[in-house]
Amino acid sequence: MLSPQLDDIVHLLKTHNARLASEPSVLQLREHADALYDALDIPQGVRFIDGDEVHGTWTTFHGARRNQAILYLHGGGYVMHTPQQYRTLTAALALEAQREVFAVDYRRAPEHPFPYALHDAFNAYKWLYERLGEDPSIVIAGDSAGGGLAVALMLMCDQHGMPMPRGAFLISPWTDLSLSAESIRSRAALDPIVSEAGLRFFARSYLQEHQDPHHPLASPLFGDLAGLPPMLIHVGGNEALLDDATRLAARAAAAGVDTSLKVWPSMFHEWHMWHTRLPEARAAVMEGAAFIRARFDA
Amino acid sequence: MLSPQLDDIVHLLKTHNARLASEPSVLQLREHADALYDALDIPQGVRFIDGDEVHGTWTTFHGARRNQAILYLHGGGYVMHTPQQYRTLTAALALEAQREVFAVDYRRAPEHPFPYALHDAFNAYKWLYERLGEDPSIVIAGDSAGGGLAVALMLMCDQHGMPMPRGAFLISPWTDLSLSAESIRSRAALDPIVSEAGLRFFARSYLQEHQDPHHPLASPLFGDLAGLPPMLIHVGGNEALLDDATRLAARAAAAGVDTSLKVWPSMFHEWHMWHTRLPEARAAVMEGAAFIRARFDA
Repeated sequence: MLSPQLDDIVHLLKTHNARLASEPSVLQLREHADALYDALDIPQGVRFIDGDEVHGTWTTFHGARRNQAILYLHGGGYVMHTPQQYRTLTAALALEAQREVFAVDYRRAPEHPFPYALHDAFNAYKWLYERLGEDPSIVIAGDSAGGGLAVALMLMCDQHGMPMPRGAFLISPWTDLSLSAESIRSRAALDPIVSEAGLRFFARSYLQEHQDPHHPLASPLFGDLAGLPPMLIHVGGNEALLDDATRLAARAAAAGVDTSLKVWPSMFHEWHMWHTRLPEARAAVMEGAAFIRARFDA
Repeated sequence: MLSPQLDDIVHLLKTHNARLASEPSVLQLREHADALYDALDIPQGVRFIDGDEVHGTWTTFHGARRNQAILYLHGGGYVMHTPQQYRTLTAALALEAQREVFAVDYRRAPEHPFPYALHDAFNAYKWLYERLGEDPSIVIAGDSAGGGLAVALMLMCDQHGMPMPRGAFLISPWTDLSLSAESIRSRAALDPIVSEAGLRFFARSYLQEHQDPHHPLASPLFGDLAGLPPMLIHVGGNEALLDDATRLAARAAAAGVDTSLKVWPSMFHEWHMWHTRLPEARAAVMEGAAFIRARFDA
């Protein structure tokens, strides 16, 4: 049974997106997208602190553990948003998983194309790992482009001999910048947020024409996923990016990874952001937080 | 971290299977396969009662609810086993999910080819639904061939206007009798139970040459899965049938089904059967039972 709030939120998303200028500048696009998430309520009980040595935002709370933290990689097609817009979600994850969150303010396209975001994420991961001190452990979480970036970051850890995170919680991950997912077409009429044209713009902005969209550090669906830590993947049934999640799960499973996939019928792209308004988002955040806690305790 | 018991059990499975005669009769095959599961411990606290009007076995306990039950469809390639060999698992599910289990003793191939097993399962479902009285609800569970049969049964409910079960818990389901799963080849050396030759024999026994292995009621992977209830799919990372599970999850998700897939690294076919000896099997049974309880309470 879907919650009665769902229709209103989907309507709000459609209305908001319809107001975007037809050929927006990157700045207009960012401001427009940010406005939607800036209006979301932020749970009480946390503080936000700017990172000192690394660009990003801590979400912290009284009594947080010193040696365990969540590294968060936000979504926005590698072009939009900053940790600022994700405070509602990092606050909920921090409180429910009872761990501090460091959300990386990675450099964005088109000003900074691939692999800037990835290198920033990797540097933040190394820095956080050091900073956590003795017996450090990190769980990665991310949504949309940040979900793909999370997988690419783990591939990079593997390549550079960095310890893997304890697990990864991936929300509506965008894992294939070649846009070969059938669902991009089959879900076009159902998805109130993600369109093929939008994805094409984001992929071009990040890859800058000359990059191969099958590069495994840009499209980690095509990477060698063997050795990755346990993953929980959430995706909405109405998402254009549905197949990016189901194919990631199948590829991870084939590579021997401890893989959990949950497909939430009728949910939209990164619906977790709406957890203060939408029961299905609240349930999804709680489930993700339970996975994160279990990974730290494993 | 894998449990220390795993290696011993995998070794036991390999040793047991190596003792099978090279060209066994169907009777020899059944006796050999049954012997393995007949040796498993059965949890205390349940009683087993033969079905009266329908062939099958009740697993019941003191204080069981009257209007809710689990319908169990056992595995064995449509050829082997009966509810008798599954008492260890139906007992655990009954106790952990706190619902009675009716395990269908469907007719087996080659004596009774497709669609006998399916019709027996469907008749048992209809009978159970009637018998539960007012406000009845059923959750289906099944493993291997019984997992495929569970999905086919739901397709048949849809075709015949029968109310759907509240959910389905599918363990290592065999969903594609055309054997197109890549994992049948890629996992051949890792799977201690299921081989391509075995699957070919079972498919031939059930389909009897003249049937199309893509028939959606024999290979429900190829069915129209829209409208099916929430599913939890478990599969082991070392299984020849890994892709039968991951492809089912992807197809169900694409059809809008509430789908959860969990891939357990290094686990073997229907490892849940070993829950009294193997911690990973115990954990998997507990997770399945939690899903079943949640479906009844939804």
